[in-house]
Amino acid sequence: MDLNNLDPIFKPKSMAVIGVSTKRPLFPGTIIYNKNLHEFPVEVYAVNEKGGLIEGNTVYKHISDVPTDLDLAVIIIKAKQVPQELENCGEAGVKSAIVVSGGFAEMGSNGKKLEEELIRVAYKYDLPFMGPNCIGIHSDYVDTFILPSERLATPPSGNVAVVSQSGGVLIDQILSKFHEREIGVRAAANIGNKALITEINLLNYFNKDPKVDTIVFYNEGFKKNTGREFVQLAKQMKKDIIILKGGKSKFGAKAAQSHTAAMATNFNLIASSFRQAGIIEAITETELVTYTKAISFGLNEIHEGNIAILSISGGHAVLSADLCAYYKLNPVPFTDEQKQLLYESVNPSAAAIATFDNPIDLTGSVTDKDIENCLELLLSFDNVEGIVVLLVPYVPTISMQIGRRLSNIVQNSPPPKKPVIAYLPWLRRYGIIIKGLELNKAIPVAHTVEESIQMMHCLHIKGLKYKKKE
Amino acid sequence: MDLNNLDPIFKPKSMAVIGVSTKRPLFPGTIIYNKNLHEFPVEVYAVNEKGGLIEGNTVYKHISDVPTDLDLAVIIIKAKQVPQELENCGEAGVKSAIVVSGGFAEMGSNGKKLEEELIRVAYKYDLPFMGPNCIGIHSDYVDTFILPSERLATPPSGNVAVVSQSGGVLIDQILSKFHEREIGVRAAANIGNKALITEINLLNYFNKDPKVDTIVFYNEGFKKNTGREFVQLAKQMKKDIIILKGGKSKFGAKAAQSHTAAMATNFNLIASSFRQAGIIEAITETELVTYTKAISFGLNEIHEGNIAILSISGGHAVLSADLCAYYKLNPVPFTDEQKQLLYESVNPSAAAIATFDNPIDLTGSVTDKDIENCLELLLSFDNVEGIVVLLVPYVPTISMQIGRRLSNIVQNSPPPKKPVIAYLPWLRRYGIIIKGLELNKAIPVAHTVEESIQMMHCLHIKGLKYKKKE
Repeated sequence: MDLNNLDPIFKPKSMAVIGVSTKRPLFPGTIIYNKNLHEFPVEVYAVNEKGGLIEGNTVYKHISDVPTDLDLAVIIIKAKQVPQELENCGEAGVKSAIVVSGGFAEMGSNGKKLEEELIRVAYKYDLPFMGPNCIGIHSDYVDTFILPSERLATPPSGNVAVVSQSGGVLIDQILSKFHEREIGVRAAANIGNKALITEINLLNYFNKDPKVDTIVFYNEGFKKNTGREFVQLAKQMKKDIIILKGGKSKFGAKAAQSHTAAMATNFNLIASSFRQAGIIEAITETELVTYTKAISFGLNEIHEGNIAILSISGGHAVLSADLCAYYKLNPVPFTDEQKQLLYESVNPSAAAIATFDNPIDLTGSVTDKDIENCLELLLSFDNVEGIVVLLVPYVPTISMQIGRRLSNIVQNSPPPKKPVIAYLPWLRRYGIIIKGLELNKAIPVAHTVEESIQMMHCLHIKGLKYKKKE
Repeated sequence: MDLNNLDPIFKPKSMAVIGVSTKRPLFPGTIIYNKNLHEFPVEVYAVNEKGGLIEGNTVYKHISDVPTDLDLAVIIIKAKQVPQELENCGEAGVKSAIVVSGGFAEMGSNGKKLEEELIRVAYKYDLPFMGPNCIGIHSDYVDTFILPSERLATPPSGNVAVVSQSGGVLIDQILSKFHEREIGVRAAANIGNKALITEINLLNYFNKDPKVDTIVFYNEGFKKNTGREFVQLAKQMKKDIIILKGGKSKFGAKAAQSHTAAMATNFNLIASSFRQAGIIEAITETELVTYTKAISFGLNEIHEGNIAILSISGGHAVLSADLCAYYKLNPVPFTDEQKQLLYESVNPSAAAIATFDNPIDLTGSVTDKDIENCLELLLSFDNVEGIVVLLVPYVPTISMQIGRRLSNIVQNSPPPKKPVIAYLPWLRRYGIIIKGLELNKAIPVAHTVEESIQMMHCLHIKGLKYKKKE
């Protein structure tokens, strides 16, 4: 059974939803059926042993009654009925399945037996399935999340693939926040108990997808031996891999055990190997989002951590400097010649009160042109690997064009491009600056000063994987 | 000179802006003049040695020409001219001043001499001033920030006073974010070089203001000996004090030195005494905001760190448990009896798959009533000091009324009230739930899981100041 070819799951032409209700429009199976019927290109069929109609559409009593070859069956019925239904799918020649139902290994030994039964059936019919105890997947082709679209916040299409052990974390901590930060997603999966399809398979699958550049994981513990395999595989891959681990603490491990039957003991053993394999570990939910933003923009890594910070507020310069100490980044000291160049590049009234040490504080007397000039200089400095611009655009001498003006500079800079990251207050009125900065993925925008330093930190972690270009 | 009575600065009936331009509407002095003329109750006069008109209004050539008694003069002219102008203000009987101009102690020894000259003049005329090198203050009565209102995000009126050494941090990191999180502000001040008026005076002033409950500081270093005085004063006060310190690291201290002539060496010496004095130290910009939100809601402190977490997503439960380990909070183990009560309080299909260990995971089969019932039980448990509700409202069985329903429960709970904090995804569509939760300051809403645990952590820090109620 090839568990690495997941096209029938992520790009099905046809699918059945087993477990709809003809009476309750907010019944989970009915939600999945209606969502795909009206919002996705997949051809979708409803199945319930009682038959009937949903808004005039046939509900088939048996999976074998569905009048087409099925790529995917989504199963959302009582746990004890699932093995038989999976058997029915196998008999009917269905190519893949997602078992949404809970009540398996996460519920103890009886559930564990049911789960083993599912695996047996899958091998018997060469029928790979995702789950159980999961909310399934989202792609441009299909969406099996058991939640109405109006409750969800869906990110734009893009180059990031997401694999989460938790459905709640996938929807709320990842996809909602990616929506908020406009991080583009190619496909997302909640693998739940991962009885059969594991992180390894999804890593292999997304590694082969040319439209995926970054693969993001939320993991509460690997199954026996798969942790090591995961790290080995990641090490060989050119794509960027970011992981948030849940259940690392004593309290968390206990909670993870009852949540997805996660085995926490193996977990800490392999954690230290992540860095060596070039896997970027996010420690907090916020880091997961900021790291993914920076990485999905395709920014080059940095190696020494030597950065420049360009601020127009002294306080922001101070806060960012403190954060550099925490995140082990080095605001490089400028030479006297560099300081002189910076001094000469800004208007005299700003120059008179500005600070040209690193972090630079151009003060509130700054103009668009001053910021442009400084950024161009910093990009040309040999001792600077990357630049953080702290853009506090409250002074009227900074225009709404500043975003576009800075992204033009970055786009026109010669390769290998140095990464530039911006902080901008997250106010609706400054949305046009954010759009300008992020145009053509030139400069990712962080919404706190800490996030901007986090983003640079993550490029530094990435630098551990790649040798410095000579 | 009484530096603790700052009414002429924060509640002036009349003020002059010294340093307007009749030609440039975006000249800083002109911005301050126009803003107060059109948007604030204060009577405002423009002063410039050349005289003239601004949109038909007289520009007075000399402060003594202004035809009224002045509570406040805002001075925004070249540094070297400021001492003479302050002298003029003294002669004219002006009661207080804000020196916006930079170019003083932060620029080295010559500037330091100018600053000393200002102090001499102030004592001569009994004329307290704020600054120099500051953007001044904002209150319901007046706003001297040198930025147009359309660029700023102003929080609602409320019970928080803010004192910042940096203008940029005040506007962007504090007031903009307080606006975003709807944290109400009574008054805000940027004290800049604090040549005369220091944190001590503002602490005394706001301590006497019955409309202020919480005082927030951003500080890059105290002046000689004032750090100890600040801590002693704070220790005696009943009001809550929150501080974010900039310049704590080697890099940051260097940046702070050139920013506001801050003396970092004294700083670390007193940092450890904050906790003992009951001062709540925020380590990051985000903590400053979340701590202020929780504290300004008037939530009771906790003493042992024994909390309950109520989640409807297993992954969120895991993440929050990990965060408890980090923030030294203890998800208390429930007794078998407590678990049974919780089990019986939720609908059977949720109960069958839910986890009633702490953190509780009610799963996506939850309803409004289940969450209500559990919250009521948790409030009644003797071993629980405070409750974090992780509200992931994507399932249609949770209604938009859930916020109001939970805040009703908290409001009707018997004193001493246990603090309840909620996490809710920060999506516009869920705004009505946030409004419901925060009604009558019942339940503050955090925008990340980490923030919700941070909020509880800050109530635990607060608990160090107060003895446990027997």
